[in-house]
Amino acid sequence: MEPSDDSGLNAKLDAIIASINTLRLEQAQLASVVDATNGRVNALQGVQQAQNGITQDVSQPGWRNAPQSPQLDPHGHPSRDNISSIDGYGRDTTLSNSPPPPRKGSTTTSKIILTSYPGQAGVDPLQMSWGESEPQKRGPVVASRNPSTIKRRNAIGAHGGSYSIYYALAVASHQLDTDHKPDFTNTEPAANIGPFKAWGDPKKIVAMDPYGHLAPWLFKDLITNEGVDIRPTIAITRAHMKIPELEESVRKGRLVPDGKICLNATGELNVTKFAVEPTWYLPGVAARFGISEGELRRSLFENTGGSYPELITRNDIKLFLPPIGGLTVYCFGDPAKMSDPNVKLALRVHDECNGSDVFGSDICTCRPYLIFGIEEAVKEAQQGGSGVVIYFRKEGRALGEVTKYLVYNARKRSSDKASEYFQRTENIAGVKDMRFQALMPDILHWLGIQKIDRMLSMSNMKHDAIVEQGIPIVERVPIPDEMIPEDSRVEIDAKIHAGYFTMGKTMTMEELGNVHGRAWDDVDH
Amino acid sequence: MEPSDDSGLNAKLDAIIASINTLRLEQAQLASVVDATNGRVNALQGVQQAQNGITQDVSQPGWRNAPQSPQLDPHGHPSRDNISSIDGYGRDTTLSNSPPPPRKGSTTTSKIILTSYPGQAGVDPLQMSWGESEPQKRGPVVASRNPSTIKRRNAIGAHGGSYSIYYALAVASHQLDTDHKPDFTNTEPAANIGPFKAWGDPKKIVAMDPYGHLAPWLFKDLITNEGVDIRPTIAITRAHMKIPELEESVRKGRLVPDGKICLNATGELNVTKFAVEPTWYLPGVAARFGISEGELRRSLFENTGGSYPELITRNDIKLFLPPIGGLTVYCFGDPAKMSDPNVKLALRVHDECNGSDVFGSDICTCRPYLIFGIEEAVKEAQQGGSGVVIYFRKEGRALGEVTKYLVYNARKRSSDKASEYFQRTENIAGVKDMRFQALMPDILHWLGIQKIDRMLSMSNMKHDAIVEQGIPIVERVPIPDEMIPEDSRVEIDAKIHAGYFTMGKTMTMEELGNVHGRAWDDVDH
Repeated sequence: MEPSDDSGLNAKLDAIIASINTLRLEQAQLASVVDATNGRVNALQGVQQAQNGITQDVSQPGWRNAPQSPQLDPHGHPSRDNISSIDGYGRDTTLSNSPPPPRKGSTTTSKIILTSYPGQAGVDPLQMSWGESEPQKRGPVVASRNPSTIKRRNAIGAHGGSYSIYYALAVASHQLDTDHKPDFTNTEPAANIGPFKAWGDPKKIVAMDPYGHLAPWLFKDLITNEGVDIRPTIAITRAHMKIPELEESVRKGRLVPDGKICLNATGELNVTKFAVEPTWYLPGVAARFGISEGELRRSLFENTGGSYPELITRNDIKLFLPPIGGLTVYCFGDPAKMSDPNVKLALRVHDECNGSDVFGSDICTCRPYLIFGIEEAVKEAQQGGSGVVIYFRKEGRALGEVTKYLVYNARKRSSDKASEYFQRTENIAGVKDMRFQALMPDILHWLGIQKIDRMLSMSNMKHDAIVEQGIPIVERVPIPDEMIPEDSRVEIDAKIHAGYFTMGKTMTMEELGNVHGRAWDDVDH
Repeated sequence: MEPSDDSGLNAKLDAIIASINTLRLEQAQLASVVDATNGRVNALQGVQQAQNGITQDVSQPGWRNAPQSPQLDPHGHPSRDNISSIDGYGRDTTLSNSPPPPRKGSTTTSKIILTSYPGQAGVDPLQMSWGESEPQKRGPVVASRNPSTIKRRNAIGAHGGSYSIYYALAVASHQLDTDHKPDFTNTEPAANIGPFKAWGDPKKIVAMDPYGHLAPWLFKDLITNEGVDIRPTIAITRAHMKIPELEESVRKGRLVPDGKICLNATGELNVTKFAVEPTWYLPGVAARFGISEGELRRSLFENTGGSYPELITRNDIKLFLPPIGGLTVYCFGDPAKMSDPNVKLALRVHDECNGSDVFGSDICTCRPYLIFGIEEAVKEAQQGGSGVVIYFRKEGRALGEVTKYLVYNARKRSSDKASEYFQRTENIAGVKDMRFQALMPDILHWLGIQKIDRMLSMSNMKHDAIVEQGIPIVERVPIPDEMIPEDSRVEIDAKIHAGYFTMGKTMTMEELGNVHGRAWDDVDH
């Protein structure tokens, strides 16, 4: 070999060696990439196995980056199947030994979808622009899981409030097909109401759908042509009612029958009634409580035992139909007068108290004040004005009856003093009151009420909530002393001390200590 | 250079080349591994992004293979952290611009856990053996999300029924700390009841916790030593009540004051009241409806709008506190007499109808029958027996008031005939009635009631449900004709035709066609 060859060879060898070194370096880098990638796989799979993929850190990019608008067109997309395919139905074998036969017309589909996500195949919510005053631009509230509707839902929750649980029992026991189509013939509202400007104000009405009484008719095309199941959340009817206390009022001459509002000597009344199921616009509800929408959603999810995961995953859906009771409006006289600023309006806002309202318990002023409210409302209507009583389903200060009875026991077993009245509730429930009047004024805006001439309530919480919403209250009318059951002085005096309106005297803490309730066996024979 | 050097060099070159080839081969293999690994990563992450990892096919092995018993010891396991770590709290930024400050004592934790799974780290439910009659072996009902309790939950849902929504509002608006510890001083039951044999029978009581009134005291050790938040689901108190119709009864001599039960001339009554929140033992509830537990769980989840995913994922948890209203027992006379087979028992089971019970609507017999029931119950107690009225929160046949009003409109706007009474409800709701009396008899078993001498109800559904549960009914007492409001003949005649008990005549369909309701303007001046 020639030296030139030799040096050429060496050069080649050097090049080869350099190349190998480069390869090694690259391979080392590649190996570390493989290692890192494997780590990611392990992490992803490990998390999914440990928690079955459900525990989600909402901060992960996939969740954050595309929450707002669907990326896929659900109409043309084949994986719409994950809502409607049938393959997995019988696999529900951990719960039942023999798979139930597939049901005709049931919404139950193959796979159980624990929650949904924006942009997920099969998710195509109907537009809902809360605060838009033109109904067609605004859109209907859609919560049904009817097979033809489930993809178009734009509200979390279910119709009927807590009665959706009974609906579920009806479906489970094969007594109701989910594809039942309601026939709304002749169910139209029995009175005209609105539309008022507030209906299109996303800040004035946040807890009910202002078009809820007209939904089946406003959106008839959607129902007929696209098979969307749209249900009313408000219904308006008329009735005759007979309250024994009012028969006495007529007898004593306090109430005079006029043949139209108070019909006759038995005190029978003519009334227009509005039943309203709650429909919450979550950003608006959050604003009323001065918190962020995220805080509200999270607390609603976490503190109800983890119900409605869509509160967390469907930030694109702004409506929630909570499983709670709603309200009923009893309007005496012409409903059109409620919104007439030229006539007087008397109003009682009443929170449910079954023990008194129905069973006449003497520990509180609930039924007496309700009866007083009805009588005054009727009188206002008879004088050419309008009389309104609104009944909210918030039993026992929205603490429920079990808590209420525990409080009663605690009160009656120690000295039942007005000065300790609120503390007893707080000891048990952690709060004095959970009624939160912040959402209550919605119904007033919806009815077109612009001012209240006579407010038949002493509650400062109700008063403040209404005034804060821009509705002035001219006069506050306390319950007459002679209507207060003796045992309920403890309640009423404590409330007056805490801020309830009175034209009488507000007691000091020391004086409150001297207001005692009746003991259980302290009977007036 | 020497030939040997030459061949040595060539050998080296050959070795180098072979080495390079090997490296290339290995690198190609490595590359394909990388490619495959990337595929897995894409698949895992893609699924997670598309569905955010939540859409679960329950047939997947991770779900099926370990549903029954926890595989991990949550006590010693570090990933308990996925319930209590704090790192992710402020990341909830898609919902709120400024992260809310971490709250003292709040249950809201870093990560939002959309549902839980058996065996998941941090899940360690307290034992609950439904049907075990020894309370300590049975265990308490635990649903609280108090930080010290959340891991020990053995019930899906939340305390307070639908009022858990208000609880969530209280927490969201920073008015209630979730670590509030209730002070149950002096709240103990105002009457002794049981224990009865049925309390330990998993078939006789499936919809309430028979130890619910004693929970805070039975499980005091768990509360004190382990900080578990255990709440009563039943409360028992005493009260005085005054119903205007009963004052009239006294005046007319139908009711005679005895100073103990009927206290005085105003008709005032002495009563023991029991408030009960529903606690469902899911296998037992399913059995009552003749369906599988899986069908029940799935329908409860799907047909309430996808609430409580733990109904699907936590087959190990058998209890559910549904967000519905409960019931109230009004007992006249000595509560111990309810279970005494040697004295007579009169009973009314009443389903809520706010429009009549409170507001006296004349379209139905609800309040009149309730008042009749109370009066008869009081008389039975005065005669040495026991009188019981049970009030169930099932407004408008558990269809709610909105549906009820729609039905009223449809009735009043066409000919309101008894023959079409039920069809009107079915047209709108898909069913005649959703009250489902199957769970109702639980409370009778709980009260120790062994037979009913006088059943103050005409409902065949209530009758059949009670008798099916092995409690005989001796006599059925219809509402007296003179107590039936004229307009409610449509309802009562239709019901009698459909199977309601009567001592009078059951009309034919043709005759029912002649029973008309009062029109809205058909006023009796």
